[in-house]
Amino acid sequence: MLPPLVPADLRRVRFDDGFWAPRIEVNRTATLPIEYEQCLKTGRIDAFRLGWKPGQPNPPHVFWDSDVAKWIEAAAYSLATHPDPVLEGRLDDVIALIASAQQPDGYLNCHFTVVEPDHRWTNLRDQHELYCAGHLIEAGVAHFRATGKRSLLDVVCRYADHIHSVFGRTKGKKRGYPGHEEIELALVKLHAATGNGRYLRLAKYFVDERGRKPHYFEIEAERRGEPPERRRRGTGLPYSYSQAHLPVRQQREVAGHAVRAMYLYAAMADLAAAYADRDLLAACRALWDHLTLKHMYLTAGIGSTASNEGFTSDYDLPNESAYAESCAAIGLVFWADRMLRLERDARYADVMETALYNGVLSGVSLDGARFFYVNPLESTGSHHREDWFGCACCPPNIARLLASIGTYAYSQEPEAVWVHLYAQGRASLNVGDVNVGITQKTHYPWDGRVRLALSPDRPARFTLALRIPGWCRGARLSINGRSVTPARLLRKGYAHLERLWTSGDIVTLDLPMPVERIEANPAVLQDCGRVALRRGPVVYCLEQADNGPHPGDFILPRAGKFKVRFRPDLLGGIAVITGKARRRQFAGWSGCLYRHKDARRESVPFIAIPYCVWDNRAAGEMAVWLLTE
Amino acid sequence: MLPPLVPADLRRVRFDDGFWAPRIEVNRTATLPIEYEQCLKTGRIDAFRLGWKPGQPNPPHVFWDSDVAKWIEAAAYSLATHPDPVLEGRLDDVIALIASAQQPDGYLNCHFTVVEPDHRWTNLRDQHELYCAGHLIEAGVAHFRATGKRSLLDVVCRYADHIHSVFGRTKGKKRGYPGHEEIELALVKLHAATGNGRYLRLAKYFVDERGRKPHYFEIEAERRGEPPERRRRGTGLPYSYSQAHLPVRQQREVAGHAVRAMYLYAAMADLAAAYADRDLLAACRALWDHLTLKHMYLTAGIGSTASNEGFTSDYDLPNESAYAESCAAIGLVFWADRMLRLERDARYADVMETALYNGVLSGVSLDGARFFYVNPLESTGSHHREDWFGCACCPPNIARLLASIGTYAYSQEPEAVWVHLYAQGRASLNVGDVNVGITQKTHYPWDGRVRLALSPDRPARFTLALRIPGWCRGARLSINGRSVTPARLLRKGYAHLERLWTSGDIVTLDLPMPVERIEANPAVLQDCGRVALRRGPVVYCLEQADNGPHPGDFILPRAGKFKVRFRPDLLGGIAVITGKARRRQFAGWSGCLYRHKDARRESVPFIAIPYCVWDNRAAGEMAVWLLTE
Repeated sequence: MLPPLVPADLRRVRFDDGFWAPRIEVNRTATLPIEYEQCLKTGRIDAFRLGWKPGQPNPPHVFWDSDVAKWIEAAAYSLATHPDPVLEGRLDDVIALIASAQQPDGYLNCHFTVVEPDHRWTNLRDQHELYCAGHLIEAGVAHFRATGKRSLLDVVCRYADHIHSVFGRTKGKKRGYPGHEEIELALVKLHAATGNGRYLRLAKYFVDERGRKPHYFEIEAERRGEPPERRRRGTGLPYSYSQAHLPVRQQREVAGHAVRAMYLYAAMADLAAAYADRDLLAACRALWDHLTLKHMYLTAGIGSTASNEGFTSDYDLPNESAYAESCAAIGLVFWADRMLRLERDARYADVMETALYNGVLSGVSLDGARFFYVNPLESTGSHHREDWFGCACCPPNIARLLASIGTYAYSQEPEAVWVHLYAQGRASLNVGDVNVGITQKTHYPWDGRVRLALSPDRPARFTLALRIPGWCRGARLSINGRSVTPARLLRKGYAHLERLWTSGDIVTLDLPMPVERIEANPAVLQDCGRVALRRGPVVYCLEQADNGPHPGDFILPRAGKFKVRFRPDLLGGIAVITGKARRRQFAGWSGCLYRHKDARRESVPFIAIPYCVWDNRAAGEMAVWLLTE
Repeated sequence: MLPPLVPADLRRVRFDDGFWAPRIEVNRTATLPIEYEQCLKTGRIDAFRLGWKPGQPNPPHVFWDSDVAKWIEAAAYSLATHPDPVLEGRLDDVIALIASAQQPDGYLNCHFTVVEPDHRWTNLRDQHELYCAGHLIEAGVAHFRATGKRSLLDVVCRYADHIHSVFGRTKGKKRGYPGHEEIELALVKLHAATGNGRYLRLAKYFVDERGRKPHYFEIEAERRGEPPERRRRGTGLPYSYSQAHLPVRQQREVAGHAVRAMYLYAAMADLAAAYADRDLLAACRALWDHLTLKHMYLTAGIGSTASNEGFTSDYDLPNESAYAESCAAIGLVFWADRMLRLERDARYADVMETALYNGVLSGVSLDGARFFYVNPLESTGSHHREDWFGCACCPPNIARLLASIGTYAYSQEPEAVWVHLYAQGRASLNVGDVNVGITQKTHYPWDGRVRLALSPDRPARFTLALRIPGWCRGARLSINGRSVTPARLLRKGYAHLERLWTSGDIVTLDLPMPVERIEANPAVLQDCGRVALRRGPVVYCLEQADNGPHPGDFILPRAGKFKVRFRPDLLGGIAVITGKARRRQFAGWSGCLYRHKDARRESVPFIAIPYCVWDNRAAGEMAVWLLTE
């Protein structure tokens, strides 16, 4: 196994495009302040003062710490690319408050310190203690990397040391692991930031121990004195809900809560890389195939039902009642990024890109102020973004992803630089001791032409690995004006351009981007007779705001022509797809639920907009999967 | 307001057709014994011995009594048309056991006598005390009417007297009403059987009190000492869940748990008739329109989601995740029957017939041994009938309906006899003091020709009111070989044939029964682009057993020709619909969830079977709503 590609340094990637740059700016100027205010006014920040007393209202909830931690992480990423003394000062204040809440033994959790002080580490299955710890650790690492400050990093190291003293296989320790995974990938990051192998081993322990017999969730339930019949399914959900039904190396099918699954699988990929663990990698590959071939929406949303916030049966992908939690699409980006860097295969980048442009980005409004927890692919008009949620995992998760998106666009290794995502901007990467600047000029994702200018600080021989997206057929490539044939250079979806690169070299990539009618496997009951429109990485939908009522009743002709037009005035500037559809006339339906006459159909124009910007106008119906002849 | 039509005396209606008669016989010989055995082996019958002690396993559940009661009611109906000394003796034994469980004050409920003796009548909202009482009362009335025995009737009268002493507006009584309606319609029956007006007034009290302020469910929650925040929504469900959000006369939109709603609305229709209460009737009409125009499946199944076992938003009729509980379709029959007899309007009979041939009958297998609780209109193959349920309301409900179906076929009043349902057999009805025999010869529902031979015991002038089904266009009618024009005689969907009738008069009715392609209102998102096949009252479906995988992907041509053939060998003898469809070729889909190429389509024959007989063979996919061009 090759060591994984190294992600780009976030501080050295800039977007100046019309797509991501405005989103990142709105994230910085609107979303981050809004989320801070929400954390403040709901008591999440003050909870770290540990002032709550029994009998008082609004006790700190078991997952509040994680919301603040994710906000810190997002703010730190933002500082990495956009210095801001005010934000940095606010971070310092919140971190000082968090540090003040740390107990003498290193323990750090608001809920269990003030609400249930006698119940630390007694219910890993249902509570979120290790999950919150994981997010604090990620925040500490992000803050350190962005600012060089160790204020939060030292706190979380002490906390991780405490956790290490509690959990493990040594006699006297608890052989537990979290019901909601997260700390595993965080400990891998903490190892990378500190070089302390203890953290990596603790991550490996948590992953390895998961799902073993005797089952820790039963052992701890017995210790809590729960009656035997409640022990196995206290929450009414099977252990697969938290991917604890089998040791992870035996898991071949995705199961349970989708966010938990993604965080676990991401950690499995991390550990597969760290330990060159082929069994873990094999499990990751099988899980990936199962997910992407049988359980993933076209938007890369995942999770088919609210009942377990996760996976159901193979090919069960209902559109209106889809769960597709924003956090799950984000978790899929985390996993895909790790698999991509480990396997150097564009199929992972394809899913990552699909998630970013569709299932992730739909989670936040264009003004950065309203959020989707759930991202269905069809709506009767009753689904709307909200200001905040009681369980507020999604808003700060979106914020930390948008603030760190640069890190997913490029990777580096000793003899190559890799371009995974196309977006106008520039990056600075390392190939051995050569510093390579890359400047992209493009209107991606609205146009598939990309011009890359390379500027190594001295002429150097290395490979420029350019992703040829899986959605693209007929890509054209040239170097300094001379055509090259991508097919000859293609390996696992990347064109490998190896040569002596000199500053001023220009690579142009032309990715034809026709509107495509996508069909789903006939086993997907809910998409039978329907097609979705996709152009490049962007999945489209019909909204009532553009098309009037019942876009789900629009029928696309089989040989319909589509027009694409960039509309700078609409929804922040988007390419719309227009064409002709037919739909049933509404006349004659009033006072009638069913009737035997075939309704007359009429020709109507339609306007499709990118799925990621739906529900930014008046409430209304929406459909991704459209009827076709 | 006219007094309602009087239903036919069950003892005087016989079926000897190929459709209902075998179902009634299977119900008698298979279902009733099976259900008795299930009640016995699950402890439901022995519960009446009141022998359970705290700490023992399997305590009597709050709704167990109702399962036994419904079985008694079903068995009594069966005795009414098919004397059976063994069954009658078994009934006597169970009734003696029930009588022995009655408390000195008349109270009769296994759970609250032995499990929670101090909690009688303390939680009407969530427990099922009055619901169980209602089913015992219905059983007592049915047993009395079928056998003339007062053994159970006297028991339930004493119990109803006790209930009357507990509930009402008099000072010192509880102003409560049931969370799960049922007792209201039962008390109306008890009044009819006994002539005791107290029972009718108690029914009216329960209906009138419902939903008033101050809200009784809050008052009793406070009495239980529940904290204020739990009082309003202790079950997490709003009061509309049990139709208690508004006084019933103000209710205009169906809401909440579908079975509860049907039982309430049926009682409202009863009371509208008993008190000539136009406000109640107006509420019933509005609720009926709302149900049938916005909330009813094509099968007359009702209830769109498992989450509240009931109604959601207007036009939300998902097929695969439909709830459409068997009991709800049965409750709809009860309500439709009452509205029909009150309003003399065939639109109620149309829905009743649709429910009987589709949404009700699908609830039991052809061998009478397996049941559906939930009746979806689409399945991936994971939905199957079961032997029994922990909450076993549906199996005995189906049994009591099948055993009493004769009563829904005909009605009578002083100057007319009414035929609502067509099925080969005979009935004996009263027109004033004239006894009128009617013999039907027909292969309905497989053929729409019906020959009715009348045999009044003396020549008499009266009206024969024949239903012209709403699904039928171009009905032809003749009396003694002479054509008459139905349109001239038609009033609210019934052809009113008024003449001097003599024994030997023959009426023939010819109801053309082409295969129809039914469309749903475009507001029904889930049926857009789809049609369903219906012939006469029978809704069809495609099953995997006949059509191979993914019938949900079959596309019916717009101008397709259908063939209908009676298949005596198949599923107990059914008319199948055959034709040609197109479907996507499966080739090329392995290892592929989405793709951009339009799949090739191939022509395939299809076989559609009546929805009511699906899942009587190997497990497989099923679809009612089929794609169309």
